[in-house]
This record gives sequence, structure tokens and C-alpha cells, in this order.
Amino acid sequence: MPRRRTPIVTFLTDFGTQDAYVAAMKAAVLRQTRDVHLIDITHEISAQDVLGGSIALERAVASFPPGTIHVAVVDPGVGTNRRLLAVSTNSQQVLCPDNGLITWAWRRFGGTARELTWRPDSYSRTFHGRDILAPAAGMLAAGKSLATLTRTLSGPLLLDLFMARGEEGAIIHFDRFGNATTNIPAGHVPPNASICLRKHNLGRLQRTYGEVSVGEPLALIGSSDLLEIAVRNGSARRELKLSLGDKVWVRRDKRVKTDGV
Amino acid sequence: MPRRRTPIVTFLTDFGTQDAYVAAMKAAVLRQTRDVHLIDITHEISAQDVLGGSIALERAVASFPPGTIHVAVVDPGVGTNRRLLAVSTNSQQVLCPDNGLITWAWRRFGGTARELTWRPDSYSRTFHGRDILAPAAGMLAAGKSLATLTRTLSGPLLLDLFMARGEEGAIIHFDRFGNATTNIPAGHVPPNASICLRKHNLGRLQRTYGEVSVGEPLALIGSSDLLEIAVRNGSARRELKLSLGDKVWVRRDKRVKTDGV
Amino acid sequence: MPRRRTPIVTFLTDFGTQDAYVAAMKAAVLRQTRDVHLIDITHEISAQDVLGGSIALERAVASFPPGTIHVAVVDPGVGTNRRLLAVSTNSQQVLCPDNGLITWAWRRFGGTARELTWRPDSYSRTFHGRDILAPAAGMLAAGKSLATLTRTLSGPLLLDLFMARGEEGAIIHFDRFGNATTNIPAGHVPPNASICLRKHNLGRLQRTYGEVSVGEPLALIGSSDLLEIAVRNGSARRELKLSLGDKVWVRRDKRVKTDGV
Repeated sequence: MPRRRTPIVTFLTDFGTQDAYVAAMKAAVLRQTRDVHLIDITHEISAQDVLGGSIALERAVASFPPGTIHVAVVDPGVGTNRRLLAVSTNSQQVLCPDNGLITWAWRRFGGTARELTWRPDSYSRTFHGRDILAPAAGMLAAGKSLATLTRTLSGPLLLDLFMARGEEGAIIHFDRFGNATTNIPAGHVPPNASICLRKHNLGRLQRTYGEVSVGEPLALIGSSDLLEIAVRNGSARRELKLSLGDKVWVRRDKRVKTDGV
Repeated sequence: MPRRRTPIVTFLTDFGTQDAYVAAMKAAVLRQTRDVHLIDITHEISAQDVLGGSIALERAVASFPPGTIHVAVVDPGVGTNRRLLAVSTNSQQVLCPDNGLITWAWRRFGGTARELTWRPDSYSRTFHGRDILAPAAGMLAAGKSLATLTRTLSGPLLLDLFMARGEEGAIIHFDRFGNATTNIPAGHVPPNASICLRKHNLGRLQRTYGEVSVGEPLALIGSSDLLEIAVRNGSARRELKLSLGDKVWVRRDKRVKTDGV
Repeated sequence: MPRRRTPIVTFLTDFGTQDAYVAAMKAAVLRQTRDVHLIDITHEISAQDVLGGSIALERAVASFPPGTIHVAVVDPGVGTNRRLLAVSTNSQQVLCPDNGLITWAWRRFGGTARELTWRPDSYSRTFHGRDILAPAAGMLAAGKSLATLTRTLSGPLLLDLFMARGEEGAIIHFDRFGNATTNIPAGHVPPNASICLRKHNLGRLQRTYGEVSVGEPLALIGSSDLLEIAVRNGSARRELKLSLGDKVWVRRDKRVKTDGV
């Protein structure tokens, strides 16, 4: 019998890294199994920012191999009666509160959501990440079947993503380099369109940073299949003075179109 | 013979994460053994804040399974003749300088302290975490006996915790969410007491965040068995304008008491 | 046949820790092999600061055992035609862009540089760390030969280090504790010289912090064999009001010299 590959459990939270909270979750996994890779996605999600956590979670689910188990905890509702989820998506498992955190991964990869019903004999009311989600992740990593920990669910709670439907969208996220993600799906940006900000016309979509000069702004499709705005070797956020919610327009250039290009 | 479970070595420091210091300690463990899990507790203890490190260390010792080896380095005395410790506490090992860092774990779990006397052939005077503590942790993880690395010690140096003895205490710690820990032990807070700050009466002790409305402050007993002050889904530090050292009072409500409630 | 020791792959970037970028690189390694230790050096290199990354990388290469594979990504030129490197140095492998990032390790340890020519079937133009360097590191960790992934190269691009040649140098780096590294090699500092800043005479070189009182400044030779300036139990940067680029002088004390001391 071939030996099973060492499973992967990841952690995505808004806990920061100055306290022992993240380590406490890892300890809970290690109590279940030592044959596991423990990987941090990020713990710098803004406190209680479910949307920001959802974006980062989608990118994690896009990156990891089949079988990976993700523990995601941005959980303003802890201690209330919100449910916990076990979502199968992109051939991976996500354990998280049912508060919309799964939205972005669900939108991109679809999946099957079950309710995580397993509970330890006793657990805190304020730290389900350590007391329920992490031990459950450890049990899954140790080979326990999902069915024994969960029950069926009609569907997860999803955030309204407010995806742009027409020619106007907005900036919804910045990464650490100051690159801006918009809510405009790739499919809404024809090749001959111009991308405009209030005070900048970025011209047509570029395929890569290398297509503009150092310090120049550009628009391109990012890894989440959304329109992004960047500055080559710089920060679009700082240099274009962008803020969350800033409007972005996709202007179809009619003349070019009628020229058949 | 059953295979030994892969050991766990954790790291708690005030080194921050912008330099290669933490990695250098992990490298020192990996030179001794590769059959090990390396887990970060935190590296964001304020520089040379032995008390803050001690609180975080206690929480780590509370979370990890028996046999875990913790390397804790908040070490303003490095290069002086302060001793190094190997403390057995809560069925785990802590390797750290003898400067009070063990205080909180010792207060909660008790233990046995030995002096870590092992030294490599040569070592720096400024980085005992890398040169002594981490290799010793690696040797313990590899199965070397504690006795060969240590000698008996009368007792570790302990910080004066200034635990509140009467009805007045103070805030001694904030976590990343702005929750405040006080120096008032759970045993000093009768169920019918009111918890008061200079400008706020928080009423009685709550069991969980869910017992107050979103945005409301509350007092509860935290995981270290100390009185904590929080705001549901918010930051007590920011919203109640709290600072380290702020006074906290436990007011027994005599009338209620005489009513037999 | 003795079992091979679990390989080590490290990561050094300017990605920060608020996004999923670092995790995506680790996922790429884990797709190649699960028999690996994944270790963070730091992700807090200032954005696109190749020199700062080079200093941290040298310290990582100084710390890790033979066979370690380092993935270093500070890559302002991603998407241009800059090459990728596989450098053998200090019995370890460094995979990084050919933009000077290897300079400090190369200066200290020498080595052999090859061009990393392996490419996946498709890859992004903006994230070679995830798409090329990390998978290549995973393949090396899994035992693939370097020769199959690389070709010979005349030599790597090196930064001009502007090492001090005479008696005047400058501060080139601060660590998190406010210790300052200068560009003055140990060999330029005779034992009887005085170390001077614009407003401070630090006296002779000390061997360790313990040789001055708490709060006092001192000059000593750091782990990179360069002159460093520190304050015992304090921050030289803050307390001496130092900045990057500040001048530092090595003053030979002629009188002492003629006394034959």
C-alpha cells in the first residue's frame, strides 16, 4: 500500500501575530495528528473584515493542492448561534464560520457545503477556531471521514459581492504592494476598452507589467479574474491616490470598434 | 516498538519578523533533528518586555500537548551572568533565560526548574537563543535526556506579579483585539459584584460576549483565570479609552447580597 | 540505505504577510514534495529593497545547514528579461532573480552561479516566485539534479557594496532592535582605534554588550564581520538619533600606537 502523502492544514485569521492565538489553533491540530504540514495563509486580515478574509481565502484555495484543509477564522459572530461550515471546493476542504467567509471561493470554484456539527465535550464561547475548527481539521487530516463530523446543509451564507454589471465598478481591495482589485469581472472588459479612473485614463488592458514603463500605471486582469489597477514597480494606491470604493469605468471605444479592430 | 510522535518545538521572542533571527534559531534546531514540528508562538513581544513575554508564554504552555518544548527568548540580560533555565511545567519543557519569563506559567502550572548548563564549544555573547537554547531544544527533541544538559536549581527568578489582593486592581495587558487583562484573579470576583472602571460601570461578570449587545462593554473571566474587559465585536482599549495601569474596581453589591441572591 | 534527511526550503521576500502570496509559494513546493521543512526567513524586506534583502539572505545562508534550499524574491524586474539564478554557496542553494540579491552571500561565502532555465508549461508574468522559483525549489528538495534545471552562467549580477576603504564609512542597515550595521569591514578596525559618530565617540571596539553599562552605546563586530553600533539594552537608532547613511569614522589613536600597545 503506498504511503499517504502528508496532509496540509492552513490557517487564515484576523488574529494578528502578537498573541498566542494562532499557535493555540496549531496545537489543537497537532493534538490530533503530527503527520501534517501547518501553513499560515495570513493573520493580518483586518479585525472582523469578512470580505477581506473571503478574498484571501479564495486565493489560498486557488493555490493549494487537492486535499488541503483550510481553517479560516474571521468570526465576529462567535458566541452567537451562527453555524460552522465544512465546504468542499476546488478539491479542498474549508472549515469556517457560516458568515460569508466562503463567498469568494464559492463564487469562483463552486462546491458543496455541509454543516460542521462535531463539538468537543466542552469548549469556550469565544474561540471556536481553537476549540472546534482546528480539532476538526486535525481529525480530517488524520483520516476521519467528513460525514462523521458534519450534516447536510441547504447552502452557505454568501456575501453580496456587488459585482459590477455595467460599465462602472469600484475598487474593493488593495494588496501590500498597493495593487488595487476592482469588482469588474474580466468578461466585462473587451480588449478595445479604455479603463478610466476619476483623474486617470489607463488606456487598454495590458497583459503584464512589462508592457508599460517603470512608474507608469496600468490595468490588467488579476489572478481572481477581476480587473486590477497597478503601477509598475510602484504602488497604485499611493501614486494614484486611490481609496477603497473609488469608481472605475470601462469605456468601449466605439470608433475603434467600427474600424473592425 | 511504536514510533515516537514527532516532537514539537515552539518559539516565543521579542525579535520581530523583519530580520533573520528567528530563522537562525529554527536552523539551530534543524541541525539537531529534522523529525520535529517548528511552531511560532509570537515574535511581537515588545522589545525586552519580560512581563508581556511571560503572559504569552503561559498561554502557549496552556495550549500545547505534553512533551512540547518551548524556546522563549526575551533576554535583556544576554551577555551578563544571568542563568538559563529548563523548566518542566504542565508536562512540557520551557527553555528560557532566568529573568522572570517563566513567572506566569509557573504561577498557573507550577513545575520543576533546572539550570541549563550545556554550552557549545563556542557561542556568541549576544544571541544565546540561537547558540544555546535552540540547539538544546533540538537535542531534547532528538531524545537526549534533560539530566545531561542541566543541573538542579533552587528555584527560578519570578517577577512580582502585583496580583490584586483587595477590591482594586489594574489593567496589565492588551491583546490585538483590544481586550484588556487585569491583575484581578477570578477568585476575587464574586458573582454578584459589579466591575467598575473610572468612567464606566460594566455591571456583573458575563460568561460570554453573546450576553451583551454588539458594541457593548463587558467584564468576563479570561483563559488565564483573570478578569478581562472587552467590547463585543469591538476594541475595549479604543472604545473605552483604556491604558495599561488603569484602575479596575470589584464592587460587591451589599444590598443584593443581603437579599440572598 | 540510510534514509535521507528531510530537506529544508526557506523563503525570503518583500511580500509582507497580509496577503496569500507567501502561502502560494509554499503550496508550490508542497505540490512537488511533502518531505520538506518550510521555513520563513522574513517577508518584511522593504518593497523592492534588493540591498536589504541581500543582507538578510546572507544571514540566512550563514545560519542554515548544508543542503538547505533558499527561495529569495525581491524582484522589481519581474516581467522583464532579467534572468533567474541557482547559486551554490556555503554548501546551500539559493534560487533568486539575478538582480544583485545574491551579493552579500556571494561576497562572504563565494560560490557557483548557474542560470535557472526550467520553466513550467505556463506561468504568470508577475509572480515568478510562485510559478518558477518555488516549484524548482520543490524539485531540488525532491532530489532532482540541479543540472537538469539550470545551465552555466558567467557570473551573477552583483550590487556595488560601497564597502568603506579608508577610515570613513556609513550606516547601511538597522535591525529591529535599532542596532546599526556599517559598511566598515572588521579588518579595517584595529584594536586601538576609536569609533566616532558625528556627535559621539564610542571609544574602542567591544567584544560584547556586557562590557558597557546598560543604556551605554558601543561599537562591536557583528555576525557579518562588519562594524556595528549598538546601545546595551536599548536602541542605538533611537537613542543616538541615527539614520541610514550617517557617517562613521575609525580613528587610529597614534599616541597609543607609538606606545607600543
